[in-house]
Amino acid sequence: QCDLTGWWENELGSKMHVSEVDSQGNFSGEYHTAVSSAQKPIEPSPLIGSQHLDEDGQCTFGFTVNWKFSDSTAVFVGQCFVGEGGEGVLPTTWLLREKVDSLPSDWKATR
Amino acid sequence: QCDLTGWWENELGSKMHVSEVDSQGNFSGEYHTAVSSAQKPIEPSPLIGSQHLDEDGQCTFGFTVNWKFSDSTAVFVGQCFVGEGGEGVLPTTWLLREKVDSLPSDWKATR
Amino acid sequence: QCDLTGWWENELGSKMHVSEVDSQGNFSGEYHTAVSSAQKPIEPSPLIGSQHLDEDGQCTFGFTVNWKFSDSTAVFVGQCFVGEGGEGVLPTTWLLREKVDSLPSDWKATR
Amino acid sequence: QCDLTGWWENELGSKMHVSEVDSQGNFSGEYHTAVSSAQKPIEPSPLIGSQHLDEDGQCTFGFTVNWKFSDSTAVFVGQCFVGEGGEGVLPTTWLLREKVDSLPSDWKATR
Repeated sequence: QCDLTGWWENELGSKMHVSEVDSQGNFSGEYHTAVSSAQKPIEPSPLIGSQHLDEDGQCTFGFTVNWKFSDSTAVFVGQCFVGEGGEGVLPTTWLLREKVDSLPSDWKATR
Repeated sequence: QCDLTGWWENELGSKMHVSEVDSQGNFSGEYHTAVSSAQKPIEPSPLIGSQHLDEDGQCTFGFTVNWKFSDSTAVFVGQCFVGEGGEGVLPTTWLLREKVDSLPSDWKATR
Repeated sequence: QCDLTGWWENELGSKMHVSEVDSQGNFSGEYHTAVSSAQKPIEPSPLIGSQHLDEDGQCTFGFTVNWKFSDSTAVFVGQCFVGEGGEGVLPTTWLLREKVDSLPSDWKATR
Repeated sequence: QCDLTGWWENELGSKMHVSEVDSQGNFSGEYHTAVSSAQKPIEPSPLIGSQHLDEDGQCTFGFTVNWKFSDSTAVFVGQCFVGEGGEGVLPTTWLLREKVDSLPSDWKATR
């Protein structure tokens, strides 16, 4: 089964904790990023998202992080796999939306 | 204020309904997509996400859609603006993660 | 046929001029961007790329812009279509790579 | 200096050969991909692009690959770094544009 509950760490050193996944696949948790493009000190930030509950345990999932130390929002999307050593592996891709002051600056807001 | 509550429609004809946003900025709702790369008929699908609650009302937000008619998950990230006619405008960017059968296929899973 | 030769303008007001496309599908030209995240004044910048030469004229293409007023590089990828009024339409997607000072900053270099 | 001339290999096993970079920073070469979403057998495919020629040798670059075995086009954008062992490292990001049959399918053409 793909159970996101628990602690995960990525290759940049960012960590996240996912609390219990409910029967709909919804979950919440906390993201401790190791990297930031913001000026203020990094703080743990809440995440909320959902996962599929496929029987084969290779479910896709997504979540939103609402940064506490900036006006930005990040979204992550990925899939559960079982690695060669039997451990869970979660390849993910992300988008970071930074706040811009007006619509004409929208083109550069997302990385 | 940026209040995501209510119905929104994008340029492809997809619609979403956001229920009440809570005091943390969390919200849930339903996404009615007009387009799909899946085989099965489209069904309304649940969304869950969060937004900032900045006083200037130009908050960034993000949400996850857990597709009911496929194994895929989509994430959206954007920002609230007020358009020329006074109406809300929500430019967003998205990632769609399709389920792949193993890690070596991970490179092509996200569009 | 999809012939990229000539002037094109996008919805942001950026313009590009593509010189003759050769028998391999290679082309060069000049990109006049209307938007910039750089400090220095915008200057026209050279582009180089290639397109398929499919008989149906709906070819995909890509090109690289080497910005003259910054250390950044942009790439664009798209496809030729014929719009409702018979004119060419070129939906494209892009990535902008900004120069960063070291590998640990690589995660934020591309938008 | 950042000199892209020569052979490079990425973590998926794809290889590319860049011929001489000219005084404008333009270059051509050949891309031997290890992965494909196309039906036909993989073939080496021509690439064309350009790089900055910054004195610090950490230049950004981009290139287009015109796939010979499919109707698709890929673009890559990245930056030169010197790794811990003194060897060149080229982190890159890419977009793959697949040919779609009409504008309403444009939303899903790029991954």
